[in-house]
Amino acid sequence: MSSQRYETQLSRLDSSAPDFAPTLRQLLAFEASEDAAIDASVVEILQAVRTRGDAAVLEFTNRFDRLTAQSMSALQIDAQELQVALASLPSERRQALEAAAARVRAYHEVQKRECGSAGFSYTEADGTVLGQNVTPLDRVGIYVPGGKAAYPSSVLMNAIPAKVAGVQEIIMVVPTPDGVRNPLVLAAAAIAGVDKVITIGGAQAVAALAYGTESVPQVDKIVGPGNAYVANAKRRVFGTVGIDMIAGPSEILVLCDGTTDPDWVAMDLFSQAEHDELAQSILLCPDADYLDRVHASIDRLIATMPRADIIRTSLRDRGALIKVRDMQEACAIANEIAAEHLEISAVEPRQWAEQIRHAGAMFLGRFSSESLGDYCAGPNHVLPTSRTARFSSPLGVYDFQKRSSMIEVSETGAQSLGKIAAELAYGEGLPAHARSAELRLKS
Amino acid sequence: MSSQRYETQLSRLDSSAPDFAPTLRQLLAFEASEDAAIDASVVEILQAVRTRGDAAVLEFTNRFDRLTAQSMSALQIDAQELQVALASLPSERRQALEAAAARVRAYHEVQKRECGSAGFSYTEADGTVLGQNVTPLDRVGIYVPGGKAAYPSSVLMNAIPAKVAGVQEIIMVVPTPDGVRNPLVLAAAAIAGVDKVITIGGAQAVAALAYGTESVPQVDKIVGPGNAYVANAKRRVFGTVGIDMIAGPSEILVLCDGTTDPDWVAMDLFSQAEHDELAQSILLCPDADYLDRVHASIDRLIATMPRADIIRTSLRDRGALIKVRDMQEACAIANEIAAEHLEISAVEPRQWAEQIRHAGAMFLGRFSSESLGDYCAGPNHVLPTSRTARFSSPLGVYDFQKRSSMIEVSETGAQSLGKIAAELAYGEGLPAHARSAELRLKS
Repeated sequence: MSSQRYETQLSRLDSSAPDFAPTLRQLLAFEASEDAAIDASVVEILQAVRTRGDAAVLEFTNRFDRLTAQSMSALQIDAQELQVALASLPSERRQALEAAAARVRAYHEVQKRECGSAGFSYTEADGTVLGQNVTPLDRVGIYVPGGKAAYPSSVLMNAIPAKVAGVQEIIMVVPTPDGVRNPLVLAAAAIAGVDKVITIGGAQAVAALAYGTESVPQVDKIVGPGNAYVANAKRRVFGTVGIDMIAGPSEILVLCDGTTDPDWVAMDLFSQAEHDELAQSILLCPDADYLDRVHASIDRLIATMPRADIIRTSLRDRGALIKVRDMQEACAIANEIAAEHLEISAVEPRQWAEQIRHAGAMFLGRFSSESLGDYCAGPNHVLPTSRTARFSSPLGVYDFQKRSSMIEVSETGAQSLGKIAAELAYGEGLPAHARSAELRLKS
Repeated sequence: MSSQRYETQLSRLDSSAPDFAPTLRQLLAFEASEDAAIDASVVEILQAVRTRGDAAVLEFTNRFDRLTAQSMSALQIDAQELQVALASLPSERRQALEAAAARVRAYHEVQKRECGSAGFSYTEADGTVLGQNVTPLDRVGIYVPGGKAAYPSSVLMNAIPAKVAGVQEIIMVVPTPDGVRNPLVLAAAAIAGVDKVITIGGAQAVAALAYGTESVPQVDKIVGPGNAYVANAKRRVFGTVGIDMIAGPSEILVLCDGTTDPDWVAMDLFSQAEHDELAQSILLCPDADYLDRVHASIDRLIATMPRADIIRTSLRDRGALIKVRDMQEACAIANEIAAEHLEISAVEPRQWAEQIRHAGAMFLGRFSSESLGDYCAGPNHVLPTSRTARFSSPLGVYDFQKRSSMIEVSETGAQSLGKIAAELAYGEGLPAHARSAELRLKS
């Protein structure tokens, strides 16, 4: 490998190396640590909120966020204050936020129309009607982290699909350590149509939403990212309420045929690496010289990055430039990786996209930088991480809807179906099932 | 209440009683017990299978199922043996199983067509293309319990939607304690198109499917019911693979306007209660006399039931006949209960169905007994329990598909989107995101 020539430490792999498969597996391996102290703390917080309601939420919030609120009403942000936050934004930023929201809404409205939201129904020859109703969830809770990871774009991406789905009430929780409120986050809540904002966070906020308290109504589902306490609490309340996926570190995989400006690809890798030290940026390319040029771009550009330290650690520990035999092999490896974000930076990118079975979102062509998708292309930026794109999907309107089967058997239908059901019920040793079907048979 | 007149113990409630709301809440409350011994055992089993693969699976299987298999190949059932099991069935039973499979397949094929499986794509004025791809999971594992709860109908209900979705490989695991194989279950696997059957069960089977071993390929999702060990193991491997909902006890809620033969309704309540002591059967009706008649039917019919002991315990501990003010109120209470199975046994049932927001499956009209849905109406019998119909859906084709967002931004599109993305990225303190968008801007 030629990486000695470069300053930025970064794995350089070759798919033809005999140890490539295990090396790649090693590189991809990520396991969320389980921390017994966090676990015990979350159990205690959930139990306290469940039994003592608002009083417990208030105590934990004052303690963890260093507040002195006297009542839960002091932790509510009313609609007027959201509008004030929106009005206070510089006009360029406000316009950007509104433009992004409009595009996200437009995409999810198409998604709603195309994803079977109307349900279906059909009538059989004997008059039996079968079908499926689709209805929105009643009430949804959105968790928004406080502090440095407070992203207004995440407010849009979580709240808008719920709103488009027809959810009646969206409750947002966001901790405000030391009482500091983030006006961009509040403005995003106003734009997205959030109904209620409560400045609580951590496991206590998850518990309040999952079980309900005197002042916080129980929700049907909790979505949104959070720290280890929040993730642990969400796992534990799953079943009482629905939850979205527990997100792992963010990832980008770039498939490049060597025709994109290396600076562009280097910056795309940075844009993932700057999230945090555990983020993963990988580039696959059949052209070894091109990989060298990207490495050189990385060396040159990294110094200009305000978050260079995070980027360096992320690239060193989890990044890789990988020489592949050809683009076909790059697609096969991409299916193995099942990345959250997959850029296909190539001429005629669709020929490669057709070979991809597993990816959270695909960005086709050199103008489709992942950052456009993060903010304003329209599709959701909440995507499956850590290879879960093998079996899960971007957050969408469908996550805020559920289905009910509809079965209306005609008297004639009950005759033929009743005999089949009774035969099988007796076979399974469930005679009341059989009798229930047989009672509907005409003698 | 008038229940003293009846032999069968069963809660008799009235929605106008001052303590009705808390009493109902109490009746519905169900919490899966958490058992520290099971927990510790599952952790050990998962770890052993993860590190030692087939050897560990073989050891646990021989120990727990009292077998003496020398290798994993001894635990495989080949396609020929499945066909032998199918051929060995009495012809009435085989025909019933095949008729049920055909109807389940037909319904799920309509569902596939109607639930957005084709994905979508649209082109904006500047040439930017946005859309969503829908693809099947590659490989799915189906858990089938052994022993008394071995239901061939569950094999059909889990495997057929996966097959219709286009899953390439379906692996079924089913424990065979003392080497006893259930021919009806194997015949159902043959009919449903299961690709591979392995006679392993418990947490060791879940681990083998989730992590893969020398002989068991890693799957992308595990579905199907199991005991407390299986449920615990599924929860723990969630994230490495997808899982379906963890099912609670089965429930039926009957809304009746008093026009259905009371024997029919009594038997419908039994058909749920006979599953197990924790199953829940509830009837809502505005007519107090009718409730008495159903109670009398219960008294008369229960003695004829082979599973009368289970039914008696279930009705006593968890069943209820509830007098409501009118059918409107019945619908409101039904939305609160969010039942797995909801029978609307009434003339013109659709007027009430329109008021229902939350139910796993609705059975409309007096001929639609729940048992028809359990076996052969067509819709899936794997349904959300324990109020989870508020936020989740019947098992369906969509559970074996996942979506990928598609973003192909044109050069023109990158100009307008890039400015919005950069503005917001700077606002969030993510400068590499901003630069990545800005590099695509023409000067």
